[in-house]
Amino acid sequence: MGRVARPAPQARARLLISCLLTSEERIHMKRIGVLTSGGDGPGLNPCIRAVVRMGIHLGMSVMGIRRGYAGLIAGEIEELTLRSVGGILGRGGTFLSTSRSAEFTTPQGQLTALRNLHRFDIEGLVVIGGNGSLTGAQKLHEQGVKVIGLPGTIDNDLGGTDITIGVDTALNTILDAVDKIKDTASSHNRAFIIETMGRNCGYLALMGALAGGAELALIPENNDISLEAVSNLLKDVYVRGKNHCIIVVAEGWKPGTAALAAYLNAQKEQQGFEVRTTVLGHVQRGGSPTAYDRILATRLGAAAAEALYAGRSGVMIGWIDGKIAETPLEEVIKPTNKIKPDVLRLARVMER
Amino acid sequence: MGRVARPAPQARARLLISCLLTSEERIHMKRIGVLTSGGDGPGLNPCIRAVVRMGIHLGMSVMGIRRGYAGLIAGEIEELTLRSVGGILGRGGTFLSTSRSAEFTTPQGQLTALRNLHRFDIEGLVVIGGNGSLTGAQKLHEQGVKVIGLPGTIDNDLGGTDITIGVDTALNTILDAVDKIKDTASSHNRAFIIETMGRNCGYLALMGALAGGAELALIPENNDISLEAVSNLLKDVYVRGKNHCIIVVAEGWKPGTAALAAYLNAQKEQQGFEVRTTVLGHVQRGGSPTAYDRILATRLGAAAAEALYAGRSGVMIGWIDGKIAETPLEEVIKPTNKIKPDVLRLARVMER
Amino acid sequence: MGRVARPAPQARARLLISCLLTSEERIHMKRIGVLTSGGDGPGLNPCIRAVVRMGIHLGMSVMGIRRGYAGLIAGEIEELTLRSVGGILGRGGTFLSTSRSAEFTTPQGQLTALRNLHRFDIEGLVVIGGNGSLTGAQKLHEQGVKVIGLPGTIDNDLGGTDITIGVDTALNTILDAVDKIKDTASSHNRAFIIETMGRNCGYLALMGALAGGAELALIPENNDISLEAVSNLLKDVYVRGKNHCIIVVAEGWKPGTAALAAYLNAQKEQQGFEVRTTVLGHVQRGGSPTAYDRILATRLGAAAAEALYAGRSGVMIGWIDGKIAETPLEEVIKPTNKIKPDVLRLARVMER
Amino acid sequence: MGRVARPAPQARARLLISCLLTSEERIHMKRIGVLTSGGDGPGLNPCIRAVVRMGIHLGMSVMGIRRGYAGLIAGEIEELTLRSVGGILGRGGTFLSTSRSAEFTTPQGQLTALRNLHRFDIEGLVVIGGNGSLTGAQKLHEQGVKVIGLPGTIDNDLGGTDITIGVDTALNTILDAVDKIKDTASSHNRAFIIETMGRNCGYLALMGALAGGAELALIPENNDISLEAVSNLLKDVYVRGKNHCIIVVAEGWKPGTAALAAYLNAQKEQQGFEVRTTVLGHVQRGGSPTAYDRILATRLGAAAAEALYAGRSGVMIGWIDGKIAETPLEEVIKPTNKIKPDVLRLARVMER
Repeated sequence: MGRVARPAPQARARLLISCLLTSEERIHMKRIGVLTSGGDGPGLNPCIRAVVRMGIHLGMSVMGIRRGYAGLIAGEIEELTLRSVGGILGRGGTFLSTSRSAEFTTPQGQLTALRNLHRFDIEGLVVIGGNGSLTGAQKLHEQGVKVIGLPGTIDNDLGGTDITIGVDTALNTILDAVDKIKDTASSHNRAFIIETMGRNCGYLALMGALAGGAELALIPENNDISLEAVSNLLKDVYVRGKNHCIIVVAEGWKPGTAALAAYLNAQKEQQGFEVRTTVLGHVQRGGSPTAYDRILATRLGAAAAEALYAGRSGVMIGWIDGKIAETPLEEVIKPTNKIKPDVLRLARVMER
Repeated sequence: MGRVARPAPQARARLLISCLLTSEERIHMKRIGVLTSGGDGPGLNPCIRAVVRMGIHLGMSVMGIRRGYAGLIAGEIEELTLRSVGGILGRGGTFLSTSRSAEFTTPQGQLTALRNLHRFDIEGLVVIGGNGSLTGAQKLHEQGVKVIGLPGTIDNDLGGTDITIGVDTALNTILDAVDKIKDTASSHNRAFIIETMGRNCGYLALMGALAGGAELALIPENNDISLEAVSNLLKDVYVRGKNHCIIVVAEGWKPGTAALAAYLNAQKEQQGFEVRTTVLGHVQRGGSPTAYDRILATRLGAAAAEALYAGRSGVMIGWIDGKIAETPLEEVIKPTNKIKPDVLRLARVMER
Repeated sequence: MGRVARPAPQARARLLISCLLTSEERIHMKRIGVLTSGGDGPGLNPCIRAVVRMGIHLGMSVMGIRRGYAGLIAGEIEELTLRSVGGILGRGGTFLSTSRSAEFTTPQGQLTALRNLHRFDIEGLVVIGGNGSLTGAQKLHEQGVKVIGLPGTIDNDLGGTDITIGVDTALNTILDAVDKIKDTASSHNRAFIIETMGRNCGYLALMGALAGGAELALIPENNDISLEAVSNLLKDVYVRGKNHCIIVVAEGWKPGTAALAAYLNAQKEQQGFEVRTTVLGHVQRGGSPTAYDRILATRLGAAAAEALYAGRSGVMIGWIDGKIAETPLEEVIKPTNKIKPDVLRLARVMER
Repeated sequence: MGRVARPAPQARARLLISCLLTSEERIHMKRIGVLTSGGDGPGLNPCIRAVVRMGIHLGMSVMGIRRGYAGLIAGEIEELTLRSVGGILGRGGTFLSTSRSAEFTTPQGQLTALRNLHRFDIEGLVVIGGNGSLTGAQKLHEQGVKVIGLPGTIDNDLGGTDITIGVDTALNTILDAVDKIKDTASSHNRAFIIETMGRNCGYLALMGALAGGAELALIPENNDISLEAVSNLLKDVYVRGKNHCIIVVAEGWKPGTAALAAYLNAQKEQQGFEVRTTVLGHVQRGGSPTAYDRILATRLGAAAAEALYAGRSGVMIGWIDGKIAETPLEEVIKPTNKIKPDVLRLARVMER
């Protein structure tokens, strides 16, 4: 089937499905569960809240499963009420906790998970997470569980959605850091290397560089820039009289921040600029979600509850071309490239 | 032609036109101008910067016109270089200044404007602003000037774009205020009326309420809610045991914040909650632009310079369905409704 | 006795009293209570947390009283554990809620309050609040209850302390608003009147103006500036070529913001600037407390628990000349002037 | 004389000297210079602004020297007007640039500096910086130049002041990072090591830990805590059921963050928590200064201009016990300990 967007538009945009379905189409699910899994990020709480509120609105009860698949196996499951999700909208992280579960990758682990779903009368499951988490969701789907996936990761490395929940907040955290480092870089006439998260995806680095007015972004999707070329860029920026030079590097870029810093420091005399490095690290995962992330998380979370209610399974609810869209989980977890060539070219022009 | 989006997709998405056109198609414009007009908002500076940088990249010189149409008439025009737009990316407001010009609405004013464009050898003009500003742009277009409009307003009340430059920053400012007021409301068991900007458009209020977890949004697009119904909502929220109730009101909603506050205070005994009012005011127009606004402004600004370079005129460059799109200025300035029914319904569900 | 600072230094700086007292001096209080009362502000949560943590550290149990004196009368009292105050450090408002209690001003109300303290075995009480709240604390002290007051108000209008808990956060919120409004003022060549809170104290307005680089602060402590003089200032600022003029006005300043705005708008032609008004309102009471407020609240809160433990009563723990200091409650609630003449003069020089 | 604070209080608190001196006492300096030197930090711009504004107010002209002592040697000197310092109040870094100058440590370098001061008719100099910069200032003072030092460093490692300019902003940046990392730590049940700046001073780490509610601060002033003890703390925190453990480490603490992380990761099984590390780095030096820093910088900067005007030299203007105070430069640059024992003990109690 592939990413449903192009070939099968009729399958997309099932927003507020409950309103569109005739009563016979409805599955009358009575109880669903929700869990967050894998790396955390901002926006997971608003997402859980939306699943709960829409679920209850549709007449279902919603069970919260703690610590992702690990908690599903361990049976750490309790009902979530409107009150359980009161006051969490603005908080970072996930109040359900999250984890990576090695046990869930085993047949025995999955079996225990299935038994617990049955034991707690959970008829459908919303899984919020990234690549690994949705791979697990697909596994459950294949074993007959009704599962809807939601893209919760700051890495923006999933198919089936233009942007994932948490990216906007992480981007603003990166921007704040770039702005601050530019202050000190300008005061000292220095060059700075700033390393962002994103695993193998350069989205955060490229967009952070574009928004922050950095002089260069180095990303895995475009790693044909030699260390020598970077050094020449520094020289060029120096000669043109700028008092700083900011290079944003994606953690997945090869040969990596440390190699770059070593090379540039060895070329210090030729470049004019001294070089410093900052690895932003886990601050990018925290913080109160931005308006964009809260709204995106709320829309997708609500749509996931509706989709389960309507009997859908095996798909992720994402955001494509400004609309809610469903894509089969098996498509979503394939390698994808979120870097559009036109944005890459635009970045090159703006970096001057 | 109408909003190009639906009927004529072939006219849309002319991103990076310069790369797509054959050399004969190019107009080889040598000098363009850029102005900001009307109400200001965050993101205007990154937008000007992108026009300048892309303009220079394409081999054109770019003239900055101060104080909008008033400065065009007064001849306050000077060249912008890469250095002129250095360091402005993160600043609120517009370094070119803006104004509303009564004189420009007269034939004499427009004549002087045309003469100044000619005198400064400006072959094409980028106008960044809202409804009134783009109406002026259309006037210039009708008189033969090559003009490209850009949607710069926090009100999000233009056609031809899903979102306008400045909205995301204003929304986060509103969200910050809602979060803060919720702190004090909860501490005192109070209800708060928070008035947002937006002129006749309820977008900021509705989205601010959705992101902030407000109990109600009152917007012009949906003003069939009686004062009595609002009072009953307060009562209901109180009875359900919540320790606060936040109502976000768009400035364009009738009968208005003052009438609402007066009514609710008169019903104080019945509702449980005391009511306070905060009018957010001009803070919504300021502040360093968010990552989203900087990126949107950069993309649209660059596309405007390219469009002029390619000889386009009489259109606004906007953002529709996740892509850059052109729409005739005459369509853009018609009344539009940015409130999607599904979001309105979602808001109702989430407000519970 | 008066403010103990000058005449009786030996009575001051009883920080960490528990460590200094010999065992005979200790009172071995077993259970204390804590309440927040009056207007809320940032820093109340860290303050409660410190009372609880230090109280428990000293071997006492700590009871939380909800909704200030109203909850004391109504018996809304429960034990606070280390876990009760986990995760509240960064939250605005007060998780114990607050209120103004008319009933507590009556002998009957106070009697009920006393009976409840007795009923819950509360031997000592920490009252966090402003003028009215500490007046109530003095009343309880006079009736034999061991009471320690803490200065929790953004108004900074108490004696016995150089600064009150919440002021620093409120000041940064005001500063953020001034910075944002300056963006839009500069873009439009406008003058803005920004009204701050502070009741009869001009501290927030004066310091907000100084930090924000405003052109004028109007405060109750210095209200000999005529409306005409303000208008002349605007004219002067305009003539000197500034593109904005910001006037920060304390809510307690007479004749008030509305009268000022009316006057200035009538003089528009003479001044050059159009004038807009923003009343900041209750956002000043909310928000995650700053580092300064969290640390101040923690130090004072801990010292209050220690002071009760050591048998002290009838005093407020404040911050004078960079040190913790005790002052009798009856001194604290007298009218005080927090505006130092040198700061006022400095502001005048900087405003140029 | 020594740090004037304790032995010679009569020499202190020369606030607004210009107002206190009789006209004969005044030195009628006509032109002063100002430079920022060494590591940068937030608050330098408001500080320069205050020197300029107060200087001009007193009838002097003020010359800005770029790039610290390096620019003084190279003759990069130009006049600063009221307009030069317009709009810089809220910007991070220093618009005069800063540097560490090896040349200035040589007799030849100092000779050239002296000649340039003479050449530009600069009769007095304000030096804003940390330890190294004020050592240089003392050198100039010894050679007959009228010099006033100001404490501009985020490290808070100078004598003669309770707090240095930039500390409050850096502390809030650290707090923001601690809050964000706590989000992700709680979501994953992890322990985090967060390394702050501060050179040999643990102030930022200790206060950041206190404000952020960290479970432990490791600082050079108190390095008798063994790695084993830290590991036991983690275990203890885990057993008590907390879902995170935050350890804030000063960069000057031995054996250092890397050794700690290696040790704790080796003990993972015993502790319950996995451990991650974040080195905050140069973001701590940037950002718009807080209200506290802007006010402190403004007060000290203005006092420095007044002190020069009054003919003072060889002292640093600092902030002691809530008041402006002068201390001889030679005292200021001696090793100092900013960690008060009572705060350290308080931190231990609160960390529970």
